Amino acid sequence: MRQIASSGVGRYRAEQAKKDDAMQRFSFAKEGSDGKARVGVISTPRGEIRTPAFMPVGTAATVKAMMPASVRETGADILLGNTYHLMLRPTAERIDRLGGLHKFMNWERPILTDSGGFQVMSLAALRKLTERGVTFKSHIDGSKHEITPERSMEIQRLLGSDIVMCFDECPALPAERGVIAESMRLSMRWAQRSREAFGDRPGHALFGIQQGGLEEDFRAESAAALTEIGFDGYAVGGLAVGEGQEAMFGCLDFAADQLPEDKPRYLMGVGKPDDIVGAVKRGIDMMDCVLPSRSGRTGQVFTRRGVVNIKNARHADDPRPLDEACRCPACANYSRAYLHHVFRSQEIISSMLLTWHNLTYYQDLMQEMRDAIAETRFAQWEAAFHAGRAEGDIEPL
Amino acid sequence: MRQIASSGVGRYRAEQAKKDDAMQRFSFAKEGSDGKARVGVISTPRGEIRTPAFMPVGTAATVKAMMPASVRETGADILLGNTYHLMLRPTAERIDRLGGLHKFMNWERPILTDSGGFQVMSLAALRKLTERGVTFKSHIDGSKHEITPERSMEIQRLLGSDIVMCFDECPALPAERGVIAESMRLSMRWAQRSREAFGDRPGHALFGIQQGGLEEDFRAESAAALTEIGFDGYAVGGLAVGEGQEAMFGCLDFAADQLPEDKPRYLMGVGKPDDIVGAVKRGIDMMDCVLPSRSGRTGQVFTRRGVVNIKNARHADDPRPLDEACRCPACANYSRAYLHHVFRSQEIISSMLLTWHNLTYYQDLMQEMRDAIAETRFAQWEAAFHAGRAEGDIEPL
Repeated sequence: MRQIASSGVGRYRAEQAKKDDAMQRFSFAKEGSDGKARVGVISTPRGEIRTPAFMPVGTAATVKAMMPASVRETGADILLGNTYHLMLRPTAERIDRLGGLHKFMNWERPILTDSGGFQVMSLAALRKLTERGVTFKSHIDGSKHEITPERSMEIQRLLGSDIVMCFDECPALPAERGVIAESMRLSMRWAQRSREAFGDRPGHALFGIQQGGLEEDFRAESAAALTEIGFDGYAVGGLAVGEGQEAMFGCLDFAADQLPEDKPRYLMGVGKPDDIVGAVKRGIDMMDCVLPSRSGRTGQVFTRRGVVNIKNARHADDPRPLDEACRCPACANYSRAYLHHVFRSQEIISSMLLTWHNLTYYQDLMQEMRDAIAETRFAQWEAAFHAGRAEGDIEPL
Repeated sequence: MRQIASSGVGRYRAEQAKKDDAMQRFSFAKEGSDGKARVGVISTPRGEIRTPAFMPVGTAATVKAMMPASVRETGADILLGNTYHLMLRPTAERIDRLGGLHKFMNWERPILTDSGGFQVMSLAALRKLTERGVTFKSHIDGSKHEITPERSMEIQRLLGSDIVMCFDECPALPAERGVIAESMRLSMRWAQRSREAFGDRPGHALFGIQQGGLEEDFRAESAAALTEIGFDGYAVGGLAVGEGQEAMFGCLDFAADQLPEDKPRYLMGVGKPDDIVGAVKRGIDMMDCVLPSRSGRTGQVFTRRGVVNIKNARHADDPRPLDEACRCPACANYSRAYLHHVFRSQEIISSMLLTWHNLTYYQDLMQEMRDAIAETRFAQWEAAFHAGRAEGDIEPL
């Protein structure tokens, strides 16, 4: 059995080399579009990411209440990890010593990490921002830390992230135009430093982050600066920070178009199902949000007919599934009455089942959109999506 | 295809009838023994229970932090449900309307329910005990309830329990002999009333519960009273209530022998791994305890080399599994460092993984004992069990 015809071995080796080469590349292939909406595939050494993609958030090296295999079963191709949380606990150096974040959390597919910037601003204490970077105290134990563009790149490299985000600053809205411009230009200088610090890492991608608030001219300036530097993908940052859906869509109407057509576009921190649909419609390829997992823990359930609050007494005797059309274990194996009971009893299985359901709902939503775009019937699909939600939950028994 | 030779149909029907008949029976077959230790199988319409059996506790219609399919994967043949908790929330009547506890919690295999008596005594407020039964206030909402032997049988019937326990009273130890005797005799009168209220329910079993504290004569009197009434199995009640392992084993040395040889013997609420081994050695066939699941949530881990406290700092950088020899997902896919991290971060996956591990450890322990008894090498196995624990955890790195 150890004797293989040498021509066979040669052919095998050549094919393997070609495959290895392909495996080293990070690439985006647009496979279709419908209006501004795009469908495609991001290829990475750790597997493909079907776009539009929703990335579940695994803040502290776990998608809360889910086993990684279950997250994959929902249809997720990629997870998001939070640099800020992981650098504080268990620390990037420790994760590196243990073989990287994928091995640590038992998720072999792609991981995108944010830069830490956003969460320093929202969670840390005693923040101090300078040209160099930001210093702050940990929200866990008060210890002092610094993140600079260079340190953010180092942390994300230590984690083993597949898609690395530039270190940026995200101002709270509303803000004066002058404040927004200044902040955006600082982020662009940091983007340049991030690019330089990231270096050349085959198979790993670096994404730039567009800033500029809701201002079209600043967004254009930011997009031009980023494109000039050159990135593997481009994120729309600084939205979904309380400006409201209408303002966000208004901004996306021009912001997405300003980013390169041939690279993935990522809208950070979005969102509710209708936010996601509106973003995809405007040309966004990737999104992340804690909403489906967090809502799972608070009893808010997303269905084709809108949001269901499982703690409501109307479900106590209801033998029907949450969502008849859903394939998740919560819908396949349990009644609303059971889900109500375990939520009210504060049982862990409530978080497990409702998170599983919500993540399944989100991934099915993405799959439906990918299909609709590929078949250029997005508008029709979108009308049905809104009609289903307008119908509201099934009548109480 | 609809034409089947009538002889074939006839044969099929006869076989099916025979199978249906067997399916209706509840039976216990002893398959081997080694000293007092026994190995066997309990057959029920919902499947076989390999004995000695450990029953994970699913208090409120869920084994905390576990999906039912995962509980089954650990090797559990049967779960325990708590009558007291379920009667208060979501109520037995509601579970009955929803098709019974098995369907409600998505567990198709056998379920044993306790009678509610023990938990009324340990959890409820304003208890009042009379010959008729016990009245109390719910620990959840203060509502008033009564359990009598007849009501306990009704609740367990509504739940759809496969193995029903007699309603009994369990006095706290230590207590005066007079108090223990009086309590035991009340429990025996209640056992008679439980038997009458249970009636004839093919495929369902009723177990009597021996009481009598640590007193050999009272235990004998109780066993005689129960045997006279006649049950499908016999529990040793009133132990594992703080008397210590030595006293418990001392009592089991005679108490188990007093119970019928040809029926399953169930030691309620036990216990730690070495309690379980000692009980099996003394002729016990079934046990239940919250310990593996509760410990999973508090970071206490059972291994072949004793108890590991995962929150201890020594694990923070340890890339090794909890227990090399273990087949559970926590050991197969994660380092001690990860388990330490998610426990310290209070992530739900910590409870999920550590409970899964502990339940796997308990079920593997039972399987090892079943094999050792079948091969009459229990003493040898027991020595190795204690030697492994004496060795202590692996050295820190």
